[in-house]
Amino acid sequence: MTTATAGPTVTPAEQAAMERALTLAATPGLDLGPNPRVGCVLLDADGATLAEGFHRGAGTPHAEAVALTNARHAHGPAALRGATAVVTLEPCAHTGRTGPCAEALRDAGVSRVVFAQPDPNPQAAGGADVLRAAGVTVVGEVRADAARALNHAWSAAVTLGRPFVTWKVATTLDGRSAAADGTSRWITSAAARRDVHRLRAEADTVLVGTGTLLDDDPSLTVRDAPGPQPLRAVMGLREIPATARLAGPGPDGAAARHLRTRDPRAALTRLWDLDRRHVLLEGGATLAAAFLRAGLVDEIVAYVSPTLLGAGTAAVGDLGITTITDAARFDLVDATVVDPTPDDLATPDGPASGLAATNLRLTLRPRKES
Amino acid sequence: MTTATAGPTVTPAEQAAMERALTLAATPGLDLGPNPRVGCVLLDADGATLAEGFHRGAGTPHAEAVALTNARHAHGPAALRGATAVVTLEPCAHTGRTGPCAEALRDAGVSRVVFAQPDPNPQAAGGADVLRAAGVTVVGEVRADAARALNHAWSAAVTLGRPFVTWKVATTLDGRSAAADGTSRWITSAAARRDVHRLRAEADTVLVGTGTLLDDDPSLTVRDAPGPQPLRAVMGLREIPATARLAGPGPDGAAARHLRTRDPRAALTRLWDLDRRHVLLEGGATLAAAFLRAGLVDEIVAYVSPTLLGAGTAAVGDLGITTITDAARFDLVDATVVDPTPDDLATPDGPASGLAATNLRLTLRPRKES
Ligand SMILES: NC(=O)c1ccc[n+]([C@@H]2O[C@H](COP(=O)([O-])OP(=O)(O)OC[C@H]3O[C@@H](n4cnc5c(N)ncnc54)[C@H](OP(=O)(O)O)[C@@H]3O)[C@@H](O)[C@H]2O)c1
Ligand SMILES: NC(=O)c1ccc[n+]([C@@H]2O[C@H](COP(=O)([O-])OP(=O)(O)OC[C@H]3O[C@@H](n4cnc5c(N)ncnc54)[C@H](OP(=O)(O)O)[C@@H]3O)[C@@H](O)[C@H]2O)c1
Repeated sequence: MTTATAGPTVTPAEQAAMERALTLAATPGLDLGPNPRVGCVLLDADGATLAEGFHRGAGTPHAEAVALTNARHAHGPAALRGATAVVTLEPCAHTGRTGPCAEALRDAGVSRVVFAQPDPNPQAAGGADVLRAAGVTVVGEVRADAARALNHAWSAAVTLGRPFVTWKVATTLDGRSAAADGTSRWITSAAARRDVHRLRAEADTVLVGTGTLLDDDPSLTVRDAPGPQPLRAVMGLREIPATARLAGPGPDGAAARHLRTRDPRAALTRLWDLDRRHVLLEGGATLAAAFLRAGLVDEIVAYVSPTLLGAGTAAVGDLGITTITDAARFDLVDATVVDPTPDDLATPDGPASGLAATNLRLTLRPRKES
Repeated sequence: MTTATAGPTVTPAEQAAMERALTLAATPGLDLGPNPRVGCVLLDADGATLAEGFHRGAGTPHAEAVALTNARHAHGPAALRGATAVVTLEPCAHTGRTGPCAEALRDAGVSRVVFAQPDPNPQAAGGADVLRAAGVTVVGEVRADAARALNHAWSAAVTLGRPFVTWKVATTLDGRSAAADGTSRWITSAAARRDVHRLRAEADTVLVGTGTLLDDDPSLTVRDAPGPQPLRAVMGLREIPATARLAGPGPDGAAARHLRTRDPRAALTRLWDLDRRHVLLEGGATLAAAFLRAGLVDEIVAYVSPTLLGAGTAAVGDLGITTITDAARFDLVDATVVDPTPDDLATPDGPASGLAATNLRLTLRPRKES
């Protein structure tokens, strides 16, 4: 029986297996390093589940390999003859730290492969061709958008050959990130600040300029979110004072990485070589402007507080734009109201300080010409 | 039979009549002048509708008077003995251009009055007391919030004794209203610009500073919205050039009103005396800052485009704020995504110019301490 929906023809059992594989891939708290989230479910010829697997990060087996091992353990190698592999990412064809999955599936006797997202790597061809050449039936792009959404930063990074950059900015309605005397606590609410920790946990690197380091002495750690701590990085030519929080050991035991450059592309190359795929650029305005001018901001997450200052530090530095037709235009892809919790409202100075205000989180992506 | 809901005790027929009265009050396209929207339904002792009425604006009879006249025409004066009046605003007790409604209802023999919003006028007491003193049963605050929402600017104006002020501002994400060279077309989208016409139609006055007049030569008329054109007003000491659009006849045949002052309160007093109750302050940044500093902005409607300029004119001028604890804090009461229409998207230069972008409309009100 096949489904009536348009698109790739898969069985209901395969559709259900794909949903399960997506859930497995999305397992929270994984330390993925430079690798994507991938889930895999193996089905027998009747559509019954033989085994499952998901990828836990660099240096560990791929999702397909995990599922194959589990299936052999549970049912013996013969059970894999004529089996179907349902996997959220096109099986790899290259030999990395583990052998190529396309060959492993073929050698195990899998006769059908259903995958979601095609391999975005422009260099290495994916495994679909390898499998087809070996006589395996391959159906691609089943729930491809859902799989891509799971790995949107990784997919873009692999395509671009550099880390994906999310610029996070906290601003008043009139585009200020600090008052005239430099004070900025608290422009955004407690709930918005908690949301930033979630953003940090989604990235593998948090980056600030030496200006922010020297002004704010931030620690840039993640609180209250599962998973590994992102790499903490500082960019600019000035030294990191030994007394700075970022000079001390972070949650991983190491001091922040100092990128002694003012060239955003060089900094990203350096981070790529450190296996980084998603940089959360946390400012300040000068560094953000440098990335924007270089066309190296892939996403903006702006926390906007319903506040006016009328003067003070601009949320973004000079972009070299002098006339309106040259404005840096983005697409607004999401606008979410960030409400205070009852606890925030109960904080004595919450309402007065803006900590208990309703803020707005806006997500922007570079303009796609239609 | 009475309803089970908490609050004032009214019959289902009275509840239904109140919904109808609210609908009548909200009739679009009315020229209300300084008066509120009011609707009235008269019921006989069995809850059947005798007549309806709504207020069409200054110099015309109040809703209650219209309904009473209609009832006499249709059923004769005797039908009003023991009738119930359901009205969206507490019947007036003062003699304006028309006689007081409380007395008219009493004299007609109405024995029960159900109203929604209490009279917000701090000077003139409402008619409830007059009616009660005459032995009429009075039930107040039935759907009071809905009625207040219909007349929110008028209610605030009557309470404050000055026109309600909505400041409209169009800004980039980084709080700019023009690029460094002064160009600003088009910061916001075509859909956002259409929405401004709706805002103008809701106000009875549109106000700009002489700076905006001299820079932009605006016409400040309302397109594609029903109802009367708002008064066009310019504030500041410089003369309005005879060649300016605002010097020419507007849709009402008159030139724009020149308020030769820099004192926001004096300007509002002048507008109040011209029977104005709701001013849409359309800029520029200098005039907006003057109103904000004087505490005379009751509502902000900000159209935010997903654009960065990095330099240029600030959306609001200096507010005299130097440190973050003095920031002007507001409550975010609404955030609405303003999407382009298919027509906007089909405009050749729409996507390139930002005319076809998705914008955001934010509504802010002065902070209420909780
Ligand atoms: N509202 C927010 O979201 C937010 C976020 C972060 C920071 N802030 C505020 O921003 C303020 C700091 O702002 P900032 O602009 O001085 O800090 P910044 O952008 O963090 O650092 C600027 C410094 O980075 C170095 N740098 C590296 N690459 C550069 C390049 N391509 N071009 C120019 N400089 C480069 C330069 O120092 P070297 O001489 O060392 O190279 C420069 O002085 C702090 O007060 C902080 O509170 C606000
Ligand atoms: N993005 C937007 O939503 C938006 C909206 C409107 C305008 N704009 C832009 O804003 C620019 C004009 O800005 P602007 O700030 O010069 O214009 P403005 O605020 O319209 O006018 C400023 C002038 O108003 C007079 N004025 C009246 N009361 C004042 C007071 N209390 N304090 C100070 N001045 C007072 C002064 O001129 P006198 O010497 O005559 O008294 C002053 O120079 C234009 O380029 C326009 O494009 C943008």
